Amino acid sequence: MTISSEVSFSSQLNLSEKFPFENFDLQKDLIIIDATVDQHFPDIGQKFRYVYRVQAGESLKSLSTFATHVENVLELWTEPLSRQSRIVSCGGGSVGDFSGFLASILKRGLRLTQCPTTWLSAIDSAHGGKTALNVRAVKNQVGTFYPAEQIVLVKDLLFMQNDERAREGLSEMLKMALISQPTFLQELNLKDGLSLMIWQNLQKAIQAKNQIVAQDPYETKGLRKILNFGHTLGHVIESHYQVSHGESVLQGLYFAVDWSAKIGLLAETKREAIFKKMTELGLKSWLDRLDFKPMPAQEVLRLAMQDKKINAQAKIDFVFLSDLGEAKVIPVSLRDLVFEAQRQGWAEDV
Amino acid sequence: MTISSEVSFSSQLNLSEKFPFENFDLQKDLIIIDATVDQHFPDIGQKFRYVYRVQAGESLKSLSTFATHVENVLELWTEPLSRQSRIVSCGGGSVGDFSGFLASILKRGLRLTQCPTTWLSAIDSAHGGKTALNVRAVKNQVGTFYPAEQIVLVKDLLFMQNDERAREGLSEMLKMALISQPTFLQELNLKDGLSLMIWQNLQKAIQAKNQIVAQDPYETKGLRKILNFGHTLGHVIESHYQVSHGESVLQGLYFAVDWSAKIGLLAETKREAIFKKMTELGLKSWLDRLDFKPMPAQEVLRLAMQDKKINAQAKIDFVFLSDLGEAKVIPVSLRDLVFEAQRQGWAEDV
Repeated sequence: MTISSEVSFSSQLNLSEKFPFENFDLQKDLIIIDATVDQHFPDIGQKFRYVYRVQAGESLKSLSTFATHVENVLELWTEPLSRQSRIVSCGGGSVGDFSGFLASILKRGLRLTQCPTTWLSAIDSAHGGKTALNVRAVKNQVGTFYPAEQIVLVKDLLFMQNDERAREGLSEMLKMALISQPTFLQELNLKDGLSLMIWQNLQKAIQAKNQIVAQDPYETKGLRKILNFGHTLGHVIESHYQVSHGESVLQGLYFAVDWSAKIGLLAETKREAIFKKMTELGLKSWLDRLDFKPMPAQEVLRLAMQDKKINAQAKIDFVFLSDLGEAKVIPVSLRDLVFEAQRQGWAEDV
Repeated sequence: MTISSEVSFSSQLNLSEKFPFENFDLQKDLIIIDATVDQHFPDIGQKFRYVYRVQAGESLKSLSTFATHVENVLELWTEPLSRQSRIVSCGGGSVGDFSGFLASILKRGLRLTQCPTTWLSAIDSAHGGKTALNVRAVKNQVGTFYPAEQIVLVKDLLFMQNDERAREGLSEMLKMALISQPTFLQELNLKDGLSLMIWQNLQKAIQAKNQIVAQDPYETKGLRKILNFGHTLGHVIESHYQVSHGESVLQGLYFAVDWSAKIGLLAETKREAIFKKMTELGLKSWLDRLDFKPMPAQEVLRLAMQDKKINAQAKIDFVFLSDLGEAKVIPVSLRDLVFEAQRQGWAEDV
């Protein structure tokens, strides 16, 4: 028999101007809230009887402190818990990963609402059902597939972020635009401002992700891999230069698009159209503000191996672009990846 | 969309005389083995390249030490891990709960084989997909639904156990016999000895459990509750007298059968037939070897409330028997439970 319909990958999506208190049982539900969000929007936590405030960031996701969090939560949340009890997560990616994992294992799985408060999480990580913790330095080494029952996107909360954060979020939206629909990219423009542009295209990006996830919810068929577009070199850049995930992915998108054109998979005209749009969206000048010195070629190799936990002989599935809205996964050797990083100025020539 | 068929509740069941090494990749799979089993059957661990030895018991299931286990396992198991990597669990209930939980969250879920080495786990806990850890003193407070891909029952390992352990396992078999089929109970007899009787009826008991689980895999519909037959007072007895789970459940079965007859749900003749069979199976004399002093009525109340995390006014779903093979869940007040415990001599009169 297959699993029955109550575990479904179709989370209910809910967009609203203000925090939708009416969706919750304020006397029984537990809200896990990013302490910074709580400072800016104290009325949210104040309305809930059970509030667990956390410091966002990778350290929240550490497995070694997880048991203490669970003990704290169970001490605080004095309701008789059942699988019908609900956790509301209000914060960015790290808070969502942590809360989602917690909700997935308490009582073998409670109800979960995600209320992402960063553009990155609103566009990407809150959707698709992945939860995760880190083991020592290795990110997302443990986790579950546990889609939220409900995802609420609150304009008030999301618009609090500055342009820097919005650009970081935009990187995942661009990724979705490039791999999902031929016209998506061209529809993006800044005439109403950066935040409003993202807000107006949010549902489209989420639907595109959900469609890919629905074909491969447990990442067993390889289809879900195209969501890694821009992330292979992105992760290397993120680790080496210690820049944000969004900015690293954006650099990774440039890299993947350029490589796709280099091998003749993507037409030059398409590459130019993509780069032109990224310039129009203010992303090129934003990226160019930092001057990255090429890293040693060995470092690209080491970080790419670490990311996938593979050996130097292994091939990695690199996501290329063959057309607007058309991604293609092609296994490449690490040697080829390093060569291309050299060609594009990310790695030193040896 | 509903979850695709690769996450299925139908584990592959495999009975064999010896440990089936041919089922595994001895160079890549990780075996988690009870250190005591390893001492008696050193050839199992020796054949695997990656062996993690654990001390069985509730302390293995503590969430507070779990992170250290994960770090140890990842340090030991140097293979590049993917969702295709496999963990083999070789031990009793605590080892299975621990290994199952670990397998369910590493890389968001690896392949899992359960090789239960106690009768209790071979009959009950290895089946049905529940994994669990304890938070402080509260048992099974966190966990996942994660059915093993494969469950192997090895005669050599199971027959190592003494009669005491066999009787403990028999309690869960009796439970399944009573709630699942009218004729199951009568088919049990000691003519070939205790262990062989259990071995010969193992598949029947497992199938009966699987049929119940298949109707309610996530315990959302209440159907799975009948598997708690004998466990309500059983858990109280287990906590108060600190006797084994199997022995406590057996006492709980007597209690539930007697109460079912008392309220007129179960015919007196049926009750007598059940008690007679339990005597024939040597269980009455085994239980009678210990002389339990009644506990204070308040203690029954406190432990029953703790077990279900409810208040004194709440009702609990008690599983009664209306006929052989026919269980009935009826909500009862805690007051009624305590009264019945007094009537049957488990609680002091006040």
